[in-house]
Amino acid sequence: MIGVFDSGIGGLTVVRALKQRLGIYDIVYFGDTARTPYGTKSPQTVTQYALEDAAFLLKKGARILVIGCNTASSVATDVLRSRFDVPVFEVISPAVEAVVARPESRRVGIIGTRATVVSGAYQEKITQRRPELKVFAAACPLLVPLVEEGWLKKPETRKIVKKYLLPLKTRQIDTLILGCTHYPLLKEIIQTKIGKRVTVIDSSEALAVAVEAFLDDNPDLRDRLEKTGNNHFFVSDLTPHMQHLASRILRTADRLEVAT
Amino acid sequence: MIGVFDSGIGGLTVVRALKQRLGIYDIVYFGDTARTPYGTKSPQTVTQYALEDAAFLLKKGARILVIGCNTASSVATDVLRSRFDVPVFEVISPAVEAVVARPESRRVGIIGTRATVVSGAYQEKITQRRPELKVFAAACPLLVPLVEEGWLKKPETRKIVKKYLLPLKTRQIDTLILGCTHYPLLKEIIQTKIGKRVTVIDSSEALAVAVEAFLDDNPDLRDRLEKTGNNHFFVSDLTPHMQHLASRILRTADRLEVAT
Repeated sequence: MIGVFDSGIGGLTVVRALKQRLGIYDIVYFGDTARTPYGTKSPQTVTQYALEDAAFLLKKGARILVIGCNTASSVATDVLRSRFDVPVFEVISPAVEAVVARPESRRVGIIGTRATVVSGAYQEKITQRRPELKVFAAACPLLVPLVEEGWLKKPETRKIVKKYLLPLKTRQIDTLILGCTHYPLLKEIIQTKIGKRVTVIDSSEALAVAVEAFLDDNPDLRDRLEKTGNNHFFVSDLTPHMQHLASRILRTADRLEVAT
Repeated sequence: MIGVFDSGIGGLTVVRALKQRLGIYDIVYFGDTARTPYGTKSPQTVTQYALEDAAFLLKKGARILVIGCNTASSVATDVLRSRFDVPVFEVISPAVEAVVARPESRRVGIIGTRATVVSGAYQEKITQRRPELKVFAAACPLLVPLVEEGWLKKPETRKIVKKYLLPLKTRQIDTLILGCTHYPLLKEIIQTKIGKRVTVIDSSEALAVAVEAFLDDNPDLRDRLEKTGNNHFFVSDLTPHMQHLASRILRTADRLEVAT
């Protein structure tokens, strides 16, 4: 199975993107809703949580790990790769590849949680690949709670998005990376506020493309993956509100199960 | 020592209120910043966390426990009292006493996290004491992240507060309980938006009054408490942002320490 974990419910946007491209494969998801969010916490704490999340997915039979959370991808990828003997995907590199592959990219904006922005992971990877690009990052800590609250189209959300994007707009970016798996749910507002001429890159989609390419290159592993199209969604805590939000993101009747 | 715990940094408003009245007593604080917030999580999970938080404080020498978090007070007070052999204070009853003691109270509004409002703890306690009072509750889940973000005076915060309070304003409440230890930091905005004629009750202040009265009634215990005026602030996770917010609430140079 393909295992995906996130700090909570937002990482289901990654599952949605994976299902669109790789719907035949079984997916097992773990959302750490008992300790969500990760983006406001320290790298040490997020790394510890990521190790536990990954261990849970492996126990459930995952043969590929996807870190469906930008914060955990920023700070915990190396530790997970050294600790576990399966392919580990993170959501940062695929988005960076999508950006550097575009010849039009000159001035790149990144939005994410405070932890993601402070880690410098996007900035570093982009500069390694194309040092001539100008990179500007803005932390948007309130967008996760707004999404978790389901305030996806409210005027207050529009105002806050506008405020967060203003410094990037002033820098006249041409490309914007949605550096948090919650943000695709605000994609329309973000596109409107940053301007039509800016190309918005969704890490979830870029990640799904990368996993597909990897499976094409690794037919042995691909052949060993279960292909019943079944999905299992585990969480560390469950409330009616979480189930409601999950159904809204997945647009299916899948139920969340409390992990034991 | 007096032990106070909260889901994170917001409970420091309780410490601030305790220090104003009972500054000579030593206080030990635990903020569960690694798992914050509690208000969006299930009663089972919050109860489990509250048990661990309380055990930590007792190990540090607390002889009185204060649940400085409305969510934990709503769902975990009975379990803590049955489990631990020290006086346990919660922030709900003192606020309720302050409300029912006012002869002018007729229509009472409560704002809190989703978990606090769903628990019905305030509604039940008020109805027990004065069944003729009309009680209206509104969950305000975004106020905790707004406070944790330090957006205490921003126009976006004003707009969101206004939106949350509108249903209570329509009900023409005369009294409003701030049912979350983060909300005193937004007291001015809340008072402005709900209207000058509404009496706003701050649970933190009511709690400090109750603890003081209890100590007056229990001189044996009072005499055994340390009275050097020292405070210790422990957290389960620490970032520069958390320290900044703590200093802003406490208005002192006290440092947060990571609990081990």
